[in-house]
Amino acid sequence: MASWTSGVRAVLLDVSGVLYDSGGPTGGTAIPGSIEAISRIRQVGLKLRFCTNESQATRAQFVRKLQKFGFNISEDEVTAPGPAARRLMLEQGLRPHLLVHDDLLPEFDSIDKSDPNCVVIGDAAENFSYQNVNRAFQVLLGLEKPVLISLGKGRYYKETDGLMLDVGAYMKALEYACDITAEVVGKPAKNFFLSALAELGVQPHEAVMVGDDVVNDIGGAQSCGIRGVLVRTGKYRPSDESHPEVKADGYVDNLAQAVDILLASRTTDQ
Amino acid sequence: MASWTSGVRAVLLDVSGVLYDSGGPTGGTAIPGSIEAISRIRQVGLKLRFCTNESQATRAQFVRKLQKFGFNISEDEVTAPGPAARRLMLEQGLRPHLLVHDDLLPEFDSIDKSDPNCVVIGDAAENFSYQNVNRAFQVLLGLEKPVLISLGKGRYYKETDGLMLDVGAYMKALEYACDITAEVVGKPAKNFFLSALAELGVQPHEAVMVGDDVVNDIGGAQSCGIRGVLVRTGKYRPSDESHPEVKADGYVDNLAQAVDILLASRTTDQ
Repeated sequence: MASWTSGVRAVLLDVSGVLYDSGGPTGGTAIPGSIEAISRIRQVGLKLRFCTNESQATRAQFVRKLQKFGFNISEDEVTAPGPAARRLMLEQGLRPHLLVHDDLLPEFDSIDKSDPNCVVIGDAAENFSYQNVNRAFQVLLGLEKPVLISLGKGRYYKETDGLMLDVGAYMKALEYACDITAEVVGKPAKNFFLSALAELGVQPHEAVMVGDDVVNDIGGAQSCGIRGVLVRTGKYRPSDESHPEVKADGYVDNLAQAVDILLASRTTDQ
Repeated sequence: MASWTSGVRAVLLDVSGVLYDSGGPTGGTAIPGSIEAISRIRQVGLKLRFCTNESQATRAQFVRKLQKFGFNISEDEVTAPGPAARRLMLEQGLRPHLLVHDDLLPEFDSIDKSDPNCVVIGDAAENFSYQNVNRAFQVLLGLEKPVLISLGKGRYYKETDGLMLDVGAYMKALEYACDITAEVVGKPAKNFFLSALAELGVQPHEAVMVGDDVVNDIGGAQSCGIRGVLVRTGKYRPSDESHPEVKADGYVDNLAQAVDILLASRTTDQ
């Protein structure tokens, strides 16, 4: 039996590339077996939390989309970088200049955005025009101490029609242009995983993270002592299994197979 | 007398930020005293070459613009990354996917661009849309061995209405997304400076480079044994004078002052 299953009480799931692939006219497609996999995790009483770096929509909109695909998921089960950044603004008195997707803007409705003292960058997709990226650059360079908050640092993600540049690429562009280092809110930041565990009331060694991003999902989880299992769906590429720095605790074809293995181990253990 | 003047037989000049500031309805404004400074360099018989990372236009268009501002300059006096990249394509059998400014496209008219085996990135300005940058990313990730050629690696440059992101920021974005290192054609690449010296028939110790970019102009020149003088025009910022890695051989308020100092030293020397 694979060792990544022993003593697991909680499952953390990445969403894009594990539950569904985004893109296309319907906003995406569920990955076969994943809707049932969620139900099976719930049926055996395992704790469950969705850990996403999704920043193209508010958490509420994102959950509604997944529900429409047929997923049994509610907003309070989701850990996402938008709400985490919102909290950071309030805690630290930050007033953001936002370089984010239009659909994420409502997450910051109640935040003071006058006279900005930081830049928040998310997966802005088409909003990453030269003009918008340049404006964020100019705001940063106009600050005495430039502060850049990045909603994740992913290199790319998979849409139904191909791989797409993620926020991390634009974070690097601004880091280089301004000679600064961004603060990442979202995976692979330790705080992000630890806040998900706190919501569930479990310890790192009792949880397993399932994701398609070897660095941000698997490496990030492992840096907190959480086991990480890589799925061969979403942005997965075969070279991820020989990554120079990150070795997953398990490799599975998809979420359905991860749940098969996890549930089989529980039958054996009990 | 400043030591950066001794034994100088040739002057290499950066253009944007030294001769003129780009931008605005007329395409830019000459920096006061720079038109006369060029004439004075010529009058005393110093060799002269313009070393620019300009990649928003063909060399021919760029020179015509400068002539319109009143500069005495001809196309064969300019070392620019577009023609250097063009030569590289021919020498190495490279077929580029181009992510460049529309006005640079004619530089690659005679180059085979079918079935691309590399990406060439220049200062594409408004052409740096999400769609275009993403397309370049997809081409790179589709290559067995991704090759990215960057026309310079500047962080930003100055237009009349503010600082603007330069090609280096987008080079970093693609490097990060694809986990590769770009090959830089243009400053600060040694080959670029050495080819300018070869055109003039002088040795590195006989030349001085005048520029507004402490890393690409001054650091690049010094790495070849050419002295570097930083002007306080263009993108210059006071913090450049305490740069952690690069110390210029001289600092001057503008090109006119550099020429004053250089010519005064010749009078004294003779």
